[in-house]
Amino acid sequence: MGLVVQKYGGSSVADAEGIKRVARRIVDAKKAGHEVVVVVSAMGDTTDELIELAEKVSPLPAGREFDMLLTAGERISMALLAMAIKSLGHEAQSFTGSQAGVITDSVHNKARIIDVTPGRIRTALDEGNIAIVAGFQGVSQTSKDITTLGRGGSDTTAVALAAALKAEVCEIYTDVDGVFTADPRVVKKARKIDWIAYEDMLELASSGSKVLLDRCVEYARRYNIPIHVRSSFSGLPGTIVSNDNPNQPEGGEMEQAIISGVAHDTSEAKVTVVGVPDKPGEAARIFRAIADAEINIDMVVQNVSAASTGLTDISFTLPKTEGQKAIDALDRVREGIGYESLRYDDAIGKISLVGAGMRSNPGVTATFFEALSAAGVNIELISTSEIRISVVTRAEDVNAAVQAVHSAFGLDSETDEAVVYGGTGR
Amino acid sequence: MGLVVQKYGGSSVADAEGIKRVARRIVDAKKAGHEVVVVVSAMGDTTDELIELAEKVSPLPAGREFDMLLTAGERISMALLAMAIKSLGHEAQSFTGSQAGVITDSVHNKARIIDVTPGRIRTALDEGNIAIVAGFQGVSQTSKDITTLGRGGSDTTAVALAAALKAEVCEIYTDVDGVFTADPRVVKKARKIDWIAYEDMLELASSGSKVLLDRCVEYARRYNIPIHVRSSFSGLPGTIVSNDNPNQPEGGEMEQAIISGVAHDTSEAKVTVVGVPDKPGEAARIFRAIADAEINIDMVVQNVSAASTGLTDISFTLPKTEGQKAIDALDRVREGIGYESLRYDDAIGKISLVGAGMRSNPGVTATFFEALSAAGVNIELISTSEIRISVVTRAEDVNAAVQAVHSAFGLDSETDEAVVYGGTGR
Repeated sequence: MGLVVQKYGGSSVADAEGIKRVARRIVDAKKAGHEVVVVVSAMGDTTDELIELAEKVSPLPAGREFDMLLTAGERISMALLAMAIKSLGHEAQSFTGSQAGVITDSVHNKARIIDVTPGRIRTALDEGNIAIVAGFQGVSQTSKDITTLGRGGSDTTAVALAAALKAEVCEIYTDVDGVFTADPRVVKKARKIDWIAYEDMLELASSGSKVLLDRCVEYARRYNIPIHVRSSFSGLPGTIVSNDNPNQPEGGEMEQAIISGVAHDTSEAKVTVVGVPDKPGEAARIFRAIADAEINIDMVVQNVSAASTGLTDISFTLPKTEGQKAIDALDRVREGIGYESLRYDDAIGKISLVGAGMRSNPGVTATFFEALSAAGVNIELISTSEIRISVVTRAEDVNAAVQAVHSAFGLDSETDEAVVYGGTGR
Repeated sequence: MGLVVQKYGGSSVADAEGIKRVARRIVDAKKAGHEVVVVVSAMGDTTDELIELAEKVSPLPAGREFDMLLTAGERISMALLAMAIKSLGHEAQSFTGSQAGVITDSVHNKARIIDVTPGRIRTALDEGNIAIVAGFQGVSQTSKDITTLGRGGSDTTAVALAAALKAEVCEIYTDVDGVFTADPRVVKKARKIDWIAYEDMLELASSGSKVLLDRCVEYARRYNIPIHVRSSFSGLPGTIVSNDNPNQPEGGEMEQAIISGVAHDTSEAKVTVVGVPDKPGEAARIFRAIADAEINIDMVVQNVSAASTGLTDISFTLPKTEGQKAIDALDRVREGIGYESLRYDDAIGKISLVGAGMRSNPGVTATFFEALSAAGVNIELISTSEIRISVVTRAEDVNAAVQAVHSAFGLDSETDEAVVYGGTGR
């Protein structure tokens, strides 16, 4: 029995009852003979309440102080969780990110982990304790100031600690039963995935699946830490994310599924730069302007130019929340680039089909487009990677498109699985 | 213009409006040319809410984790206060007790400060910042765990930082205008005291005055740091606690007032050990039993024994909350000591008259008892120090007793001062 890192999200520790339930689950793992390290998020809506308070006292909350504020949330949940475990008769100690040795860069509100030195955690475990660690936070290597890791930060804390402590598995407890072949709120017959490879999970995560964020999956892949995504409510086995399918028989006769799942995302908008002179360097100037405004973009598509005009259109997608900033940035360089006009459209949706098996199955792309066509869904943009096909459609067509593709690839389960599927936030 | 330490209690920063009001006050001090260090408590009822949560998850919250939990409260208030100051265009940085160099022993929930190493605070000030420090908390020298300082902890943090940084004054902002000659809720004509010596303030604090705790006054006296107790709401000058009256003319013609004030306390109970054999060592055995149970007692009175029986009665007062524990402790040693019975009475009150001037004024004691007699108040116990007389009466007589004594010593102001007088908690 080795070391296990367990991570519990805010919805799992939303109130005293939740904390006590999680404490029992942790003690079960300890009783089973594991060394247990627990990473915990802030309780329920604590973080939102703190953000609201910050907005009341300051129009633009500053980075360093904002991080100091937000980290109070995990401080509360981790101390309560340690107390709850102690009242079950087991030893537990809680540690802030700084005490746990989570060393980051100095970028407040979205710091990156640059080292993990879990000496105090190791000592606590050696003394027989369950170690409880605040997720989402660390300490800057240079300034010694408290930092937060941004979205998905607690999952990343858990995976980083699992890597530093050489854990046998990192269990991410959430309010759903695992990773599904599609969002069960949209596709009633979505199936829970028992195992998925890191790279498929990465594509699903970056295509709109919210159970795990790509950042944490990337970290796990780099250090080869298996992630087990499971429900803190049901206790059932969830989804294993790893390099090798643990259910695969010796010899590897069982092939990997062609398709892992269908993801969708309606949080993006589409910008089209119309009438761009089709000559070298124009696209670069557009995306330099976007990059200078610190906007992350997703899909980029450029059509062949009309021979008659020598002009082309360049489209890209980006988070709706960044839309105005992108338009402003492009307006400022309009003279220099000499494009004709800008179009902004935030009524779009993106559907992505992910699966490493599609590499060797040339029919996948055809089946995908046939399914969309049969469902009467019009395609506005197409973008592919080696193991993913994504299309942009009207937002109102997204649900029908996801259902059609899910059925077309034989992903539907025999029965409707009744699950609640929610984002985990951080 | 030197360095000023300002401390704001929970009622001063109870909500976003309070935090913004306090931020403006802090910026005023900075604009006036001071270096400013601010110590802040948790917002309003935050601490009580955290304690309530802890009680829900654990019947006996443990020391280390309880401290980790409670320190989240100051983390929130200090970060919000720093943000509010920044939004007024001034630089501010917040620091936990640990970051500020508040080093304590390892006694969780009531740690004592053993050193203050404010290197980071000094650097922040040198860089032009206002430094905001979490009150009530520190870090254990040996275990590196987070500790809390117990009751009055934020005031003590402020005074300790003022001493370590060689501040010219430590301003304690609260919800009252200063220290009064009596509790204004009881005595309408109570007067604000402009200046009071450390030792008189110590006696008032240990006699029931709740504005400052004796612990913080002791610290200030040891390092000769003047304390200025004042209202965060009115901004008026409050009460200076120091060695020398700053209003005293050169040469010292102005004499110190004979009496500083009248304090009262109805939070104590009285235990009487009846029929104790009057021989050496009996009292010691009683108080060893009490000390072993870690109970702090206040007044102790023993009457001369009746010659006929050779038995005496020993009475002492202690916090009501410790009553049951004391009775249990004494029950266990009854056989050994051979006393007759125990009496427990929690319907008592204590009235104390404090003033260094009473040393040289022999009439003070007489006037004190005459005033009580005229008010029809019966005296049950008497205890005196060089600058204090305390009596125990029935609890229901306390208000009349305080008013009578206040008038008898000419402390009544000409007008009723309208103030709200509340405890500051921590």
